[in-house]
Order: sequence, then C-alpha cells, then structure tokens
Amino acid sequence: MKSIEELLEVIERNLSEYRENNLFYPAELYDPVFYTLQHGGKRIRPVLVLMGLNLFEDCIDEGIASALAVEIFHNFTLLHDDIMDNSSQRRSRPTVHKKWGVNTAILSGDAMMILAYRFLAKSPQKHLSSLMNVFNKAALEVCEGQQLDINFEAGSSVQEKDYLEMIRLKTSVLLAAALQMGAVLGNADQEDQENLYLFGLNLGLAFQLQDDYLDTFGDQSVFGKRIGNDILTNKKTFLLVKALEISAETTREKLVKRMILNDGNETEKIRQVTEIYEDLSIAELTKQKIRHFHQNSLDHLSRVKVDDERKAFLLELAEQLITRDK
Amino acid sequence: MKSIEELLEVIERNLSEYRENNLFYPAELYDPVFYTLQHGGKRIRPVLVLMGLNLFEDCIDEGIASALAVEIFHNFTLLHDDIMDNSSQRRSRPTVHKKWGVNTAILSGDAMMILAYRFLAKSPQKHLSSLMNVFNKAALEVCEGQQLDINFEAGSSVQEKDYLEMIRLKTSVLLAAALQMGAVLGNADQEDQENLYLFGLNLGLAFQLQDDYLDTFGDQSVFGKRIGNDILTNKKTFLLVKALEISAETTREKLVKRMILNDGNETEKIRQVTEIYEDLSIAELTKQKIRHFHQNSLDHLSRVKVDDERKAFLLELAEQLITRDK
Repeated sequence: MKSIEELLEVIERNLSEYRENNLFYPAELYDPVFYTLQHGGKRIRPVLVLMGLNLFEDCIDEGIASALAVEIFHNFTLLHDDIMDNSSQRRSRPTVHKKWGVNTAILSGDAMMILAYRFLAKSPQKHLSSLMNVFNKAALEVCEGQQLDINFEAGSSVQEKDYLEMIRLKTSVLLAAALQMGAVLGNADQEDQENLYLFGLNLGLAFQLQDDYLDTFGDQSVFGKRIGNDILTNKKTFLLVKALEISAETTREKLVKRMILNDGNETEKIRQVTEIYEDLSIAELTKQKIRHFHQNSLDHLSRVKVDDERKAFLLELAEQLITRDK
Repeated sequence: MKSIEELLEVIERNLSEYRENNLFYPAELYDPVFYTLQHGGKRIRPVLVLMGLNLFEDCIDEGIASALAVEIFHNFTLLHDDIMDNSSQRRSRPTVHKKWGVNTAILSGDAMMILAYRFLAKSPQKHLSSLMNVFNKAALEVCEGQQLDINFEAGSSVQEKDYLEMIRLKTSVLLAAALQMGAVLGNADQEDQENLYLFGLNLGLAFQLQDDYLDTFGDQSVFGKRIGNDILTNKKTFLLVKALEISAETTREKLVKRMILNDGNETEKIRQVTEIYEDLSIAELTKQKIRHFHQNSLDHLSRVKVDDERKAFLLELAEQLITRDK
C-alpha cells in the first residue's frame, strides 16, 4: 500500500514528465494550462483515484491516467469558475483571465477539458467505458452545481436542502467519482463501487461545510486567509442559509439589513453577523452537520469488502479533511 | 446505402428524441444548449460520420452516438468562439452570450462538451478507445487552430502556409476525424481510415477556401449574407493573405492603407479592395487552390478499398460542398 505522500509524489512526477516529454504549441494556448496545473495544491482528487485503486490492488500504475484526468478536469473548472466569479486571485497568484484575458481563459480551459479526456483514454481498454460513464456523469453534475450556485447568488431564496444539493453537485460528486474510478480500475464489484462513491460523497459534503465553518469560525493565526470573507461578500454559505432559515423575523431582518448595508466598516460587519450566528448557535449546528456527514462516510467505507488495514490511509485522509483548521 | 437526406433525418430524429426522453435541470444551463443545437444547419459532420460507416457497413445504427458527439462538439466550439469573437448573431439569431450573458455561454458550452463525450461513450465498447483517440486529437487541434486564428487577428504577419495550417486545425481536422470515426466503426483497416481522414482533410481545406472566395466573389442574389463582409472587417482570409504576399510594395501599401482607413464608406472600401484582388488575379489563384485540394481529396477517396458505387454519396457531398454558391 502506498502512503498519501507517495501517491502525491507519483502524481507530481507524472504531471512534470508529461509536460517535459511533449511539444505544446501554440504557447498562448498551453502556457495558461500548465500555469493552472502547477499550483502546489493538495491534489486530493487524483490521490483519491489512486487510493480507491490501491484499496483493491497493490500496483497503482493503471490508475495514473485517470488520476491525472480528474485533476486536470478539476483545474479546468476552477479556471472557468474564476472567469464567471470575476476572481482576480487564486492561491495568491493572478487568475488566468486577469493575467492573459478572458478569451485565453475560455480557450485554455476548453483545451484542459480535452486533455483530461485524453488522459482518461489512456486507461486500460476494458475499463474505459465504465470510467467514462462515472466521469461524464460527475463532470456534467459539476456544471449543474455551478449553475445552481450562480442561480443562488443571483438571489433565489435558498433552503438548507437546496444548498446541500448545490454543494453535492458542485463539490462532492467529483470526489466521489474519483474514488469510484479507482474502484473500477481495481475490479471492485458494483456494491463496493457504490459504497466508495458514497464514502466520497459524504466526505465531500463534510469537507465543504468545514470550509464554510472555518471562514467564519476558524482561528485567524492558522487559517491563512482573512476570517470573515464570506460574510463580507454575502456569500450564500451553510451558515447564512441556516441562519436565515431558523431565525425569528426580527433577527432575520437585522441580518438581511446588515448584509445590505455597505458602510465600509468591514470589521464591524463581520463582528455583527458573527454575533447573530452565535446567538443562533450556527457554529454548533454546522459542526453537528459535519459530524453527520462524516459518520455517513465512515459507515459506507466500513461496508467495503476489504481488510480494515487496507482502509487505514483513506480513514487518515478523511480525518485530515474534516479536522483541518485551514 | 442511405442517402444524405436519409442520414440527416436520422440525426435530427435522434437529437429530438434525446431531448424529449431526458430530464435536463437546471433550465438555465440546458436551454442554451438546445437553443444552440437546434439551428437548422447542414449537419455536415454527423453526416460524414454516418457516411464513413455506411461506406463499409449497411447498418449505421452503431454510428449514431458518434455522429451526435461530433455535432454537439462542433456546436460547442461555435458557442465559445462567438464569445471570443464577440459576435452578436449566428444563423440570424442572437448568439448565446448576447441572449443569456457570457457566464451562461461559458458554462453551457462546457456542458455541451461533456454531453459530446457522453454520446461518444455510448459507442460500441470495442471501438471506444480508437474513437476517443481520433476525436480527442481533432478536438484539441480545433482549440489550437482557434488560438492561431486569434494570434493572426491580433496582428502577427501571416503567410499562405500559416493560414492553411490554421484552417487545417480550426476547420478541416474535425471533418476528417468525423469520417475516420465512421471508418473505425465500420471496422476499416488503418490504410482506409487514413485515406478517409485525408479525403476529409483536403475537402475541409477546399471548403474553407470556398467560404473565403464566396464572401468576396459570390453572387449577392444567391449568397444570402452581404458580399464583402470579410473585407469590411479586415478578416485574414486566404484572399487577403495571398494578396499581401504576392503584391508589389506600392499595391501592398495601397491595400493596407485602405484596410486601416475608416471613412465609413463601406461600399467604396469593398469596391477598392476587390479591385486590388482583381488586379492580382486573387479569384483565379483561390479557385486554383480549391481545385488542388479537391483533387487531393478525390485521390484519397479513390484509394479506399471499397466498390465505387459505395462512394457515390461521398462524391456527391464533396461536389456539393465545393461547387456551392452560398
């Protein structure tokens, strides 16, 4: 079995070799592609493909192509999302559309999606059809999730269940699909594939809620980014959706008024909204929901018909993702 | 053997049934997808997939998924190209980004590309790997061609060979790949696949040059669009590239000056540039080049190891595309 660090090394090495051993022309198209891919991120999704495979097989070579496909696809979505959100920074660097313009960002993103499928096509032929089905379903759902997110931000009223459905599509299904693709490559049966998918899906939901939680209730000294950014931008997070849902009318009006008011006093806005969240016990409610999804994910993993010691690294990763403080 | 009209009917019917028999949600994502797909266009690419298959096999059912994949991919490229070119009309209707905004146009385009791969994945499993390889290569080349086109329009000096390479990538490789995919599905050997690919590639080059030719030298009464639009927009066509290449310095200066001058007199600009083209025999040189590529394409078709009568419809289509006057 390979550790998370060993899998990460495999992914980085294969990505570098791919760039070095091929000619990419024209540079205007491909420079933004590799700029996007080389970001020093966590590479969770490709690691999940390889861990899913490694659960069933000791040799992970046959999973590398799918792992890179999922990673490249994920980075393509970030690139296009950054245009749609008009974000100027990602991972402390200018976004592609800020650095090279919107047209280049659109086209380079398109090329990345095709590159993802090129990698997928390098998978063992006997698994290609199944891999395509799992991957395509998730890829389309990611687009659907992004559209729901756009709809929400454009002002439609959002309930907890709508929010959870949105993050299921936008974030979780790709984590789930990554694990299932690993299972497909490891010749797992349908039941094990589904349990791994649901392990990933629930983990993804917990992961996204942890993101929402940390942005308001994280510890500034370890979080890295500014605490309260979601509050400042009125982002529809689990915290806000839940607060709007459970608050009495006077509190809800106070919250909405504070969101609309733009007096430039950022610290005060963060303080006031956080105070409302505290009065409503939003932190506890969020933590509770995270534990719920975390437990669901562990239940599904426990049902996978593989010796417990083979699951150790996946449990470790799940623990890391849920208990992280940045 | 099925006629072009019969194949067209198969394509339209399958596309309609696909829309009717599936739920597409959210509407904000999928309405622009079907708006783009239902345009009453020529459907050349999917017809070519089915004709390529029909050359070798009487039953074309196994080619429908690939045919739709190619058509959906082509329409995705038009959707994203329209954003990049900031075009407001396509086929006498508002473009998606004018009708729904740039963000929707980006995201719906992304969803279309994934839908294309979903169709591809419905192809017979034994051919899937080969189909993916042919399709992915062409798809990536289309992006490369679009980037070269952007580079050209941004001002780099363009020679005839650069222009031909650009249209090879941007237009021809997908027509070629469509035919090769049909051949793959028809169990054709590698040599026949390559000859069909090159038949399509040369046909595509001739087709694009015919486009350039008609925009300036077409007959207004049948052309449909305004004659001279490429001249008005200073578009880098084969005509312009060739004229800049072969003209003596004084003529070249006159041409460049007329391109830069923006006195609002459109009719006069078209007249003057056309006159320069006529002095340089650009129409004849373009026709010559079209005949050259047309002949190349016929040579490759003649080498395909199939009875001549099976090639009749492909020859008819090639003839139609080259001799068309609109």
